Amino acid sequence: MLNIERALVICAHPDDEVLGLGGTIKRMTAAGIEVNVVMFANGNEGYPTLAEKDSIVETRRNEREAVQKILGISHFEAYDYGDYAIPANEVTYKICMKAIRAYRPQAVFTHYWREYNTHKAVASIATDAFWQAGWTCSLELGDPWKPEALYYFEVIELLHQISHIVDISDTLEAKLEAMKAYASQCSVVPGALRQLEGKAFMRGAQAGVNYGEAFLKNTDRPEIIL
Amino acid sequence: MLNIERALVICAHPDDEVLGLGGTIKRMTAAGIEVNVVMFANGNEGYPTLAEKDSIVETRRNEREAVQKILGISHFEAYDYGDYAIPANEVTYKICMKAIRAYRPQAVFTHYWREYNTHKAVASIATDAFWQAGWTCSLELGDPWKPEALYYFEVIELLHQISHIVDISDTLEAKLEAMKAYASQCSVVPGALRQLEGKAFMRGAQAGVNYGEAFLKNTDRPEIIL
Amino acid sequence: MLNIERALVICAHPDDEVLGLGGTIKRMTAAGIEVNVVMFANGNEGYPTLAEKDSIVETRRNEREAVQKILGISHFEAYDYGDYAIPANEVTYKICMKAIRAYRPQAVFTHYWREYNTHKAVASIATDAFWQAGWTCSLELGDPWKPEALYYFEVIELLHQISHIVDISDTLEAKLEAMKAYASQCSVVPGALRQLEGKAFMRGAQAGVNYGEAFLKNTDRPEIIL
Amino acid sequence: MLNIERALVICAHPDDEVLGLGGTIKRMTAAGIEVNVVMFANGNEGYPTLAEKDSIVETRRNEREAVQKILGISHFEAYDYGDYAIPANEVTYKICMKAIRAYRPQAVFTHYWREYNTHKAVASIATDAFWQAGWTCSLELGDPWKPEALYYFEVIELLHQISHIVDISDTLEAKLEAMKAYASQCSVVPGALRQLEGKAFMRGAQAGVNYGEAFLKNTDRPEIIL
Amino acid sequence: MLNIERALVICAHPDDEVLGLGGTIKRMTAAGIEVNVVMFANGNEGYPTLAEKDSIVETRRNEREAVQKILGISHFEAYDYGDYAIPANEVTYKICMKAIRAYRPQAVFTHYWREYNTHKAVASIATDAFWQAGWTCSLELGDPWKPEALYYFEVIELLHQISHIVDISDTLEAKLEAMKAYASQCSVVPGALRQLEGKAFMRGAQAGVNYGEAFLKNTDRPEIIL
Amino acid sequence: MLNIERALVICAHPDDEVLGLGGTIKRMTAAGIEVNVVMFANGNEGYPTLAEKDSIVETRRNEREAVQKILGISHFEAYDYGDYAIPANEVTYKICMKAIRAYRPQAVFTHYWREYNTHKAVASIATDAFWQAGWTCSLELGDPWKPEALYYFEVIELLHQISHIVDISDTLEAKLEAMKAYASQCSVVPGALRQLEGKAFMRGAQAGVNYGEAFLKNTDRPEIIL
Repeated sequence: MLNIERALVICAHPDDEVLGLGGTIKRMTAAGIEVNVVMFANGNEGYPTLAEKDSIVETRRNEREAVQKILGISHFEAYDYGDYAIPANEVTYKICMKAIRAYRPQAVFTHYWREYNTHKAVASIATDAFWQAGWTCSLELGDPWKPEALYYFEVIELLHQISHIVDISDTLEAKLEAMKAYASQCSVVPGALRQLEGKAFMRGAQAGVNYGEAFLKNTDRPEIIL
Repeated sequence: MLNIERALVICAHPDDEVLGLGGTIKRMTAAGIEVNVVMFANGNEGYPTLAEKDSIVETRRNEREAVQKILGISHFEAYDYGDYAIPANEVTYKICMKAIRAYRPQAVFTHYWREYNTHKAVASIATDAFWQAGWTCSLELGDPWKPEALYYFEVIELLHQISHIVDISDTLEAKLEAMKAYASQCSVVPGALRQLEGKAFMRGAQAGVNYGEAFLKNTDRPEIIL
Repeated sequence: MLNIERALVICAHPDDEVLGLGGTIKRMTAAGIEVNVVMFANGNEGYPTLAEKDSIVETRRNEREAVQKILGISHFEAYDYGDYAIPANEVTYKICMKAIRAYRPQAVFTHYWREYNTHKAVASIATDAFWQAGWTCSLELGDPWKPEALYYFEVIELLHQISHIVDISDTLEAKLEAMKAYASQCSVVPGALRQLEGKAFMRGAQAGVNYGEAFLKNTDRPEIIL
Repeated sequence: MLNIERALVICAHPDDEVLGLGGTIKRMTAAGIEVNVVMFANGNEGYPTLAEKDSIVETRRNEREAVQKILGISHFEAYDYGDYAIPANEVTYKICMKAIRAYRPQAVFTHYWREYNTHKAVASIATDAFWQAGWTCSLELGDPWKPEALYYFEVIELLHQISHIVDISDTLEAKLEAMKAYASQCSVVPGALRQLEGKAFMRGAQAGVNYGEAFLKNTDRPEIIL
Repeated sequence: MLNIERALVICAHPDDEVLGLGGTIKRMTAAGIEVNVVMFANGNEGYPTLAEKDSIVETRRNEREAVQKILGISHFEAYDYGDYAIPANEVTYKICMKAIRAYRPQAVFTHYWREYNTHKAVASIATDAFWQAGWTCSLELGDPWKPEALYYFEVIELLHQISHIVDISDTLEAKLEAMKAYASQCSVVPGALRQLEGKAFMRGAQAGVNYGEAFLKNTDRPEIIL
Repeated sequence: MLNIERALVICAHPDDEVLGLGGTIKRMTAAGIEVNVVMFANGNEGYPTLAEKDSIVETRRNEREAVQKILGISHFEAYDYGDYAIPANEVTYKICMKAIRAYRPQAVFTHYWREYNTHKAVASIATDAFWQAGWTCSLELGDPWKPEALYYFEVIELLHQISHIVDISDTLEAKLEAMKAYASQCSVVPGALRQLEGKAFMRGAQAGVNYGEAFLKNTDRPEIIL
């Protein structure tokens, strides 16, 4: 998974990329892998006080830019959908297709498909685009590109099966730093930081290391052994 | 389940609340529990003759108001979506969030998630809202409120698992009266009344009582034992 | 399955009807069964070169008309949705309801519900319409009609369970001819023709015949034995 | 399902055949279909008082013989396994294979595979034997015979999917009489008779008739359409 | 769950009771609830060096007795099956039935049914016995007793759904002490102690407390609300 | 998958290894990988005529030895269980543990767990042994050994998900030759050879090659990325 040149993360909300695979992103960028992120929502609902309602989108944009630096993300392609308003439709599907063809990743990372509704929408379009981007069609969206693998990460729900655990012992600190950079969100979900650490602890323990992040490799596109 | 102060039912069509849990609603209101209902569709497709097409929405509004009295429902928050036109989107999601925060129920009841398409849409948004309403976010929709439990009821499909059966022996009559109040619908689905009674009979028999209604408790939000 | 008067195929894209059940359609029409097709997408994304972008919809219309003749399809009710833009909403649902009531099929064939996103949308509305078309409602869409059976066919994903295999040894040629008539698509999915043949070979071998097509009968509406 | 010459029921305990499909057996035998039953357990644990412990096996044998007459069962091949002691092993598997080859049924009926442990064991061996009995192997167990269909009936758990409902309005009485002939069991499971009636009522209501029994057709062996 | 008089744990191997619910057992016994344990295996395979092969059963018996004291377990009914030799048969099923009738627990705790093979065997017999113990049958095994609830705990596999989390912040120490008392096992599964802590950390974080243990309530026997 | 030193196949009957992965075995042995096979059944039920009943076990032993040469299998550890008599118990579990520790494979191949009963038994013990063989326990069975991966192959049922397809275009001939060497079996399952070819054709077509064999990688033991 880490033996690639370029990775693409397709996620819903500002902080999903950190909660899901912040430690893995940091490991990848530290190893010289180019990591790009497509993010659909602008964070408009995550205001922990009414007073912050009008400024929350800007706040989260600034937080996101800080996270980009902390994790070393190359392009952060962020869209302006409301937090509860990410559709699975032609527009968002084409965003995924285009990003896969433009960034040409070997590995794509996205939400797990048994999840919260907007996450499910992203999981659905990213999964299909992962596969259809390699077809000779819709050339306006770029030249066909076949990523080698698609991995689901875990944000809210635990994955029901896991196929990979990445050792993030050395990058947990960056993951925590990134989550703290999303300062506005740390009070939205009570105990979010502790949950982040609890999951990292447990996934690490399962792998015999200090901290870990878990993934499930999609099998819609089998690995071909020539 | 019945040891609470306030309950909220989130359903799709006029009559789903009766078919699904009419007997339980009546037991709750008889016991002094405040029961509120959010309903999305206006019943526009349920005209059993072409002549009734233009009046069916008004007919069903009147029927609904009769049912409200029969079952003792406090607020009946009815929306004007077409029967086949209930989307799972930002607007309907916010309706659920807002209702949960406004009515502050201990228990929420909604459609089962393996069901007919519009029912599935309601199940999806109600399930997520049940959980996200407790977050410190979207404060414009009201102060955070955490219901204790979410129950799925059965309307068309039998539940594949059931966690609770409520004895409705004393309120079956009210349930039948309410269903008959939805007079326009009794001819739409052939044998609807008999199916209602058959299900009540069987669920009761499973519980060793005369008549029952079955529910599945959602486990997305585990009960915390302090 | 083949002992009926009229069949209706509800599918997403131009070529799904061939890939899924081209051989079975040909067997039905050869036996004097009326076969009608509802198709939602116009094929706008299937251009294998940028130069063909503006003409692809017309190309596929022409291809589709050739296929109609090859397979002997009576009405080919084709809509103009973009390939990635087939929604599961009131409009498409009513198209299904109306078609079932207009064509009065004994058997309906549609996409499998664990599939590529737009196929899933079609599977969902066709499955519900198959059942609701028999209700005494929405009479503007025609008189109630109850098809006897609904079958899922396989296009991309293999069906996880199969209940029927149709011997298409005598009509594989027509199926291949029809697929070749969709000439523009044969280069879009690499190896599409070979996959078609591979699947027909394997399904036939499972049935002890030369070539076959597999189906899963839906059980949402049990067969009633009087 | 009822348009056959011979049926075979493979079940675990004395009364499973009545609870599961007593009404359907009676309809078949009344229509001249030969129905045979293979039953594994002797009923040794169903003593409702300690005093009956030593006589219960004989009691249930007598009850079973009365049921055989009531329902018109031809051969009742009853084995002597303890109620909690039915294994899925070579011996019981061969009993199934042999019975299928000896009775040459067009339809086999057995327990649902998501069930109580001994029922699950019977479901497992009957399902595999249904299919392997048609192979050219184990000829000592009789000449190969391919039943056309395998149906699961429901005893304890409701079936999660149903493919067929048989109208037993005219034979419910025989079903009840047969259950009452298993007099020793009516007090073992409290409310057993009422559950029987509740299920028959509900399944009938689903089919638009007075009383019904539900089945799920196994799809491990697809119907071949030549 | 903790508002009961008596609990029964049915598990496979010496240490499963600690890994699965050591903290919860301690909370129960500290609150005056009687906790009994039925354990099938003698620990014969858990020798971390060949030299310990002949003494391991005795070692684990001693360890188990120490754990009994640490956690305050009343009766520790331990059987002598080999670690890989726990069958799901008449004998073990009757052990479960008898224990439920003898200890008369309100709550039963057992292995999760999607698990390692011998754990699965225990899950299967305990689940069925939980339900059948309430029938008026097999009176030699004691008078009928209906426990109110059955909970699955997690040892190796994470539960796929959880319905309850118990706060074990105050009893984690006892859980760890008990695990360390199973000194022979701490080297068998590398990192077992750390996995124990990781899981407790994560489950606690999910509940907003320091440490937790997670459970899934069985729904085979719905709660009846009279 | 093919970049390893040693592989171990654990299967039920003589010919399962050929049907499931004969082409892959040949590719491995041709590439210098050591392939060993553990096989439980002696083939005693596969006599296509009564006259062959007493000689069938010997016949299949001879056939198996021919296959060993054709495919280049190093050790063929064959047990003497009857075809319908393979238990999942302590003895067979230890056979798996011991074989894994003795042959020290990087990859283990076994039956799919949703399958015919004896195949399911093998799948169950092989899956657990694959994981427990790496523990520091049961040292009498050899020193702990952790294979890197476990793959399920398909014999009767198609895999519901596939993670890998191996190109067997160059070794299909050897697979067919091996199947023909199991001459006694070619008449047992009608059309077995054609089914073999049909599956190979389809799996190859899915991978864009002439012939293929499909596998599902087990995820009980996630790949750890250090």
